[in-house]
Amino acid sequence: MSEKLTEVLDSLKAIKGVHGAALIEKFGLIKGSALPGWVDPEAVAAMVTLILKASQRATKELEQGVFQNAIIESEKGKILFAEVKGNILTLIATKEAKLGIINLKLGAASEAIKDVV
Amino acid sequence: MSEKLTEVLDSLKAIKGVHGAALIEKFGLIKGSALPGWVDPEAVAAMVTLILKASQRATKELEQGVFQNAIIESEKGKILFAEVKGNILTLIATKEAKLGIINLKLGAASEAIKDVV
Repeated sequence: MSEKLTEVLDSLKAIKGVHGAALIEKFGLIKGSALPGWVDPEAVAAMVTLILKASQRATKELEQGVFQNAIIESEKGKILFAEVKGNILTLIATKEAKLGIINLKLGAASEAIKDVV
Repeated sequence: MSEKLTEVLDSLKAIKGVHGAALIEKFGLIKGSALPGWVDPEAVAAMVTLILKASQRATKELEQGVFQNAIIESEKGKILFAEVKGNILTLIATKEAKLGIINLKLGAASEAIKDVV
């Protein structure tokens, strides 16, 4: 994992209400992660694969074009997914984390790692 | 499909930038739909299944609790999913559709159909 990528993932993990972040290649390979010990990166990779499969159906059958980003909100937290050059930057947050702030930081992080992924 | 459900799905379909809406039971059964002819309800049901699978992993392995809602944004459009008593209300929209308005209407629609699903 490049130094730049480590730095960006660590900075996402440091946001209030964010448990951690990972960069998953679109076929499920974990390219980098800054996750707490109780989160299995493979579980995050499996989720990315399922989201991309759902998006592929949307692309093919609903003429929605290529995947850009997704959010899953649950009772106790939310997970954000953003496409970065064939990879998916994934962020795991608590329910309380503010979507506006997280989306801004996620956009900035995507830009920052574009040249190193 | 109940009259009330038909009415609510039709009213969602009438929103500017919305292609259509459907109510899918959590195991993939289509309980009602107001979709344009070019959208296969089965494709929408398949997407719901994939999103719920991703959410189940989040629930089990990331301690996120039960599924509430999700959005997938693509190059040419977005798809919204909202949980309503074990069913998923799904809305297919263009890129231009305003998320704020759609979320409000989706919330109101969820409330309106709670007693008939």
